[in-house]
Amino acid sequence: MTNSLLKTGERIDQLFSSPIKIIQNKAVFSFSVDSVLLSRFPNIPAKKGLIVDLCSGNGAVGLFVASQTKAQILQVELQERLADMNRRSIQLNELDQQVSVIQDDLANLTNHIGRSKVDLMLCNPPYFKVEPTSNLNESEHYLLARHEIATNLDSICQVAQQTLKSNGRLAMVHRPDRFFDILDTLRRYKLAPKRIQFVYPKSGKEANMLLIEAIKDGSVAGLKILPPLVIHQESGEYTDEIREIYYGK
Amino acid sequence: MTNSLLKTGERIDQLFSSPIKIIQNKAVFSFSVDSVLLSRFPNIPAKKGLIVDLCSGNGAVGLFVASQTKAQILQVELQERLADMNRRSIQLNELDQQVSVIQDDLANLTNHIGRSKVDLMLCNPPYFKVEPTSNLNESEHYLLARHEIATNLDSICQVAQQTLKSNGRLAMVHRPDRFFDILDTLRRYKLAPKRIQFVYPKSGKEANMLLIEAIKDGSVAGLKILPPLVIHQESGEYTDEIREIYYGK
Repeated sequence: MTNSLLKTGERIDQLFSSPIKIIQNKAVFSFSVDSVLLSRFPNIPAKKGLIVDLCSGNGAVGLFVASQTKAQILQVELQERLADMNRRSIQLNELDQQVSVIQDDLANLTNHIGRSKVDLMLCNPPYFKVEPTSNLNESEHYLLARHEIATNLDSICQVAQQTLKSNGRLAMVHRPDRFFDILDTLRRYKLAPKRIQFVYPKSGKEANMLLIEAIKDGSVAGLKILPPLVIHQESGEYTDEIREIYYGK
Repeated sequence: MTNSLLKTGERIDQLFSSPIKIIQNKAVFSFSVDSVLLSRFPNIPAKKGLIVDLCSGNGAVGLFVASQTKAQILQVELQERLADMNRRSIQLNELDQQVSVIQDDLANLTNHIGRSKVDLMLCNPPYFKVEPTSNLNESEHYLLARHEIATNLDSICQVAQQTLKSNGRLAMVHRPDRFFDILDTLRRYKLAPKRIQFVYPKSGKEANMLLIEAIKDGSVAGLKILPPLVIHQESGEYTDEIREIYYGK
């Protein structure tokens, strides 16, 4: 059955620490450490509720989350090619009862589910602003996944404000050089940051990633800066913490 | 000579890593790790220029900085008792030619030095807002040093905007739960944050301190989140990095 789900150029990847299998295609889209960290960052409602994975790509974030909960998961991906991989990854994991994909612009999410319905929204968005100096010589699939062409921080926070329940949470992974943009945009949509974790490639290096969780209509008091997450040791090997995430205890 | 500079209850403290001696009095005010880290956080102009140490207390921050530069250093402390300790610490280190103290409200700094004169401003301010629930049962000296009674973030950022040169820098140590206040207040006075370092008591714990440097009239692009600074190992001993700061290499 597995092989019949694969198209040319695709392969199946799996973390040692997770039962979830993900259909990948390097030429189109592959998930990376940011998706893995995002799927483990928020507190996941264990049994019920609605979880939305925006910019789901080939489905890694939502599928890793699926293995931690019985809640319904809705994945939203604009690109037909990626949404198709996402759907087949759901089939591959036999999670059709729990996880589904909407292929549409995330700005249209209220057309599909209405307002104030979501308990937890996760998003691994395009990181880069489109600037006159941007290098846009990538394949279309990576281009849309990496650059704010088809969506942007404003649209993401707007749809979070529309579709989250009051006190529902938005969890995002992003880059530190967009940190002030992120804070301003969250605030514009009354999403109060509560937990921030910075991710460092090595212990002596500047952060190159951040995880942030905000609560809809929450108060701005009570921010926590979580323990630093360091990816590699000096030797280049994963730190114990990352090794555990990838390989299990 | 040394003993004649000490008053009842005072002692002289010194880091193994620094030639600087600081007059302390536990009942009145003692410097702590935050002052040590702040004094090492910004790039210190090596030879010339004007450095201001706001809320200088007994003088630790400015005096630690003095050992790294030949620039003039002006310390500003409101409390007579602390400014007096600060002055005697300057004498004790024979730094009268380089370092001086103004005992006044920092809001009056332009009366002393005019506008747009300062290259680098350091500040270890009172951390706590005064709230109806605040515990204000401390000695007056600690009360003013810890709580925003005699000054606050707004006054500090205003005086930074008034007295820094264009592209001059403000470096502060503060608490993560005031992070958004800090960012908002810096912005209100056109001080652009450029470097932030979070400080963690142990590797698995949330940050309990942050160091932040902002540039007057700088652009908001180009934020760096510096490597995490962890104070203690699991065993309770200092980490290598902090040991080096206290004891030298």
